[in-house]
Amino acid sequence: MVEALKQQVYLANMELVQKNMVIYTWGNVSGIDRDQGLVVIKPSGIAYEDLKAEDMVVLNLEGEVVEGDLKPSSDTATHIALYRAYPSIGGIVHTHSVYGVTFAQAGIDIPPLGTTHADYFHGVIPCTRNLTEEEIAEAYEENTGRVIIDTIGDKDPLEIPGIVVKNHGPFAWGNDPSEAVYNGVVLEKIAEMAYRTLTLNPLATRAPQYLLDKHYYRKHGAKAYYGQ
Amino acid sequence: MVEALKQQVYLANMELVQKNMVIYTWGNVSGIDRDQGLVVIKPSGIAYEDLKAEDMVVLNLEGEVVEGDLKPSSDTATHIALYRAYPSIGGIVHTHSVYGVTFAQAGIDIPPLGTTHADYFHGVIPCTRNLTEEEIAEAYEENTGRVIIDTIGDKDPLEIPGIVVKNHGPFAWGNDPSEAVYNGVVLEKIAEMAYRTLTLNPLATRAPQYLLDKHYYRKHGAKAYYGQ
Amino acid sequence: MVEALKQQVYLANMELVQKNMVIYTWGNVSGIDRDQGLVVIKPSGIAYEDLKAEDMVVLNLEGEVVEGDLKPSSDTATHIALYRAYPSIGGIVHTHSVYGVTFAQAGIDIPPLGTTHADYFHGVIPCTRNLTEEEIAEAYEENTGRVIIDTIGDKDPLEIPGIVVKNHGPFAWGNDPSEAVYNGVVLEKIAEMAYRTLTLNPLATRAPQYLLDKHYYRKHGAKAYYGQ
Amino acid sequence: MVEALKQQVYLANMELVQKNMVIYTWGNVSGIDRDQGLVVIKPSGIAYEDLKAEDMVVLNLEGEVVEGDLKPSSDTATHIALYRAYPSIGGIVHTHSVYGVTFAQAGIDIPPLGTTHADYFHGVIPCTRNLTEEEIAEAYEENTGRVIIDTIGDKDPLEIPGIVVKNHGPFAWGNDPSEAVYNGVVLEKIAEMAYRTLTLNPLATRAPQYLLDKHYYRKHGAKAYYGQ
Repeated sequence: MVEALKQQVYLANMELVQKNMVIYTWGNVSGIDRDQGLVVIKPSGIAYEDLKAEDMVVLNLEGEVVEGDLKPSSDTATHIALYRAYPSIGGIVHTHSVYGVTFAQAGIDIPPLGTTHADYFHGVIPCTRNLTEEEIAEAYEENTGRVIIDTIGDKDPLEIPGIVVKNHGPFAWGNDPSEAVYNGVVLEKIAEMAYRTLTLNPLATRAPQYLLDKHYYRKHGAKAYYGQ
Repeated sequence: MVEALKQQVYLANMELVQKNMVIYTWGNVSGIDRDQGLVVIKPSGIAYEDLKAEDMVVLNLEGEVVEGDLKPSSDTATHIALYRAYPSIGGIVHTHSVYGVTFAQAGIDIPPLGTTHADYFHGVIPCTRNLTEEEIAEAYEENTGRVIIDTIGDKDPLEIPGIVVKNHGPFAWGNDPSEAVYNGVVLEKIAEMAYRTLTLNPLATRAPQYLLDKHYYRKHGAKAYYGQ
Repeated sequence: MVEALKQQVYLANMELVQKNMVIYTWGNVSGIDRDQGLVVIKPSGIAYEDLKAEDMVVLNLEGEVVEGDLKPSSDTATHIALYRAYPSIGGIVHTHSVYGVTFAQAGIDIPPLGTTHADYFHGVIPCTRNLTEEEIAEAYEENTGRVIIDTIGDKDPLEIPGIVVKNHGPFAWGNDPSEAVYNGVVLEKIAEMAYRTLTLNPLATRAPQYLLDKHYYRKHGAKAYYGQ
Repeated sequence: MVEALKQQVYLANMELVQKNMVIYTWGNVSGIDRDQGLVVIKPSGIAYEDLKAEDMVVLNLEGEVVEGDLKPSSDTATHIALYRAYPSIGGIVHTHSVYGVTFAQAGIDIPPLGTTHADYFHGVIPCTRNLTEEEIAEAYEENTGRVIIDTIGDKDPLEIPGIVVKNHGPFAWGNDPSEAVYNGVVLEKIAEMAYRTLTLNPLATRAPQYLLDKHYYRKHGAKAYYGQ
């Protein structure tokens, strides 16, 4: 059915451990096969050291499990909401990595303070608003997806491939599960740099827009020429 | 007598090393066999690399050693006070892990700033008051237990399975020794996230109560459905 | 042609990974053969785990590739500008290491707060001005080199063998590629110490000049006698 | 002559690497044989990975090398000044570990904020005054020892087995080289906890004196009973 994607999603989940992005069962990665309309995601509550590729759960875009004996991650509805809204996204990652959570809990956008940020994210990495009591009471996980989508607005999600959900933590995405994890790791590193910059100099400001544009466009889009 | 529990307590102590929660001889884990009324705890002053399961010390709930050649941890009276007060607790851990100690030394409760906290702790992780000079002069370790119990008040200790003792450090507990260590590691990670959040934004506030409740109850209690 | 130098540059690049100075493809090291006027640099966009000595790219001081099938690092023009300006430099390193970037993003010189700094850098490690919009639009990477050179002014580049480029990150250099990496690692450690010092005590001031001079000159120059 | 001590000093130096207290050639440990009046110290400028027990340098208390082909550490005169002043000290360590240096550069005593501190240090870990220009110009390393001795005053050096030298870094000591390193590692951990406490809550105050006394004396002296 989607054996290759299950393997990719499995490896992307294990990559979270190697990059020190998760402890215990925290975090999850998914991927999508657009042709078949099938999403593959980590099962719920399995420790990474026990995880196997065949444990991955397969769902359709209505959120119905179509393959797998285990329960899908409880964040599955958030992932599916994003896949439905953004046809260009092929993989999604959610973690409770420390610096992403720090900005989520502080309720602050991650400002583009330098070229590390601009090499991957074209503008601030936004912090969403809080969900309302009603949004949480009913379809909480799906509404988490909706609040992310509201925050992205009409921007291209691949130009700012990550976000922090208020009082919760980061989500990141990419063309495929592996790139989603890559962007999640980069978001965490950028968040650490921003944390240290702002605690050292609370008056630090965004880098000039022309510098941010230069770095983003020398690496992305038609005229890209970058690669350190 | 309690061979299986000695093995569990030994492994839980060694887990502290693997999770970078301790250096040298710092920290200790205990467990209890409720049927026999026997507590098993790490011996005093033995380095982790020399520790063996048979070194674990067995005491009754009056604090008398009933098995083992080594002295029990000098914090034993604190552990026993908690086991006597709370029949639901099956394991206890004490460490001097950095971020737990930071809140203990700062004399500040760890506020519930986000969902990582709410997934495990239902409300603030409290910081106790200081012991008085009298409480320290006599039965210091037992009184440390009493101050913890006073701080918990009439709450369920398993709803907030950890605390920081003022100017000292964290204690955590759970259904068994392994879960106690798990909760201790989570407390340390939550404390780090809170430390970074509050140094980045000293005005950061608690997450909305309905968000905290949602996360706690989707993972604990009768309607739980969670597991990332 | 320059086989030994290619090996040195390769090893110096791999050293960045071992010292936790880089993730993914971030960072690059180069070296120069002054007799032949040839620069060797890491190729663009190759992950460190796939890097081999024979992948290193050889260029002349006009920036023309004279050996190698891969594209040179996109920062090559910055390296070449520095080699042309400073005949005493034999190796250059650029990273996005966290604490160097922190000062770059904060827009703050790294002040000489203690003897660790003075053992290697004789004075502040400066933060450059921002490049102008014009400097970025045309020959951005070469102009990055020019701004570094402007900031160094008429000082000896080996007396302050590193700098942070505003809103970007650190560059460091030395007599050869290995020493450049050494100085880059030291710059990062000094930056971490300065970050912690200034967040602990924002009023901390430079160490006395006579202490800084003592440490610098007991280790460098004709009367050096140092080595811990 | 002092073969066993050379082995001990060698192992204590290597322990600094394992505990992440040093990079490159930074840091040095010494030990003394009081009967023979001989000090053993790490040689100058040798990388830890190349260090061997037979490289250790032996000196008398006048600072004259009596065995060994290599130059002794350039901090040797500081070590010898301390051995001469304090007959109870058997080993000394000096590092540029990050948190010790942070307090040295901030020019702040490490206050006794909690029981981790009180378990090992009976009172503040002091920061020395700066050396004067004259003290630095002549016999700098010996004068560093004198300033440490002035700061300790008439206290027992084993009750506060460490100090930070202003704008420089930590020195620690103990009954033998191994205990000196142990105390140096503990000083670094305590410094980290104090750094985090004071950045979280700049108004944090010393723990009550009776708590500090309780912890110090349950572990040290005639009535000691402690060992976690």
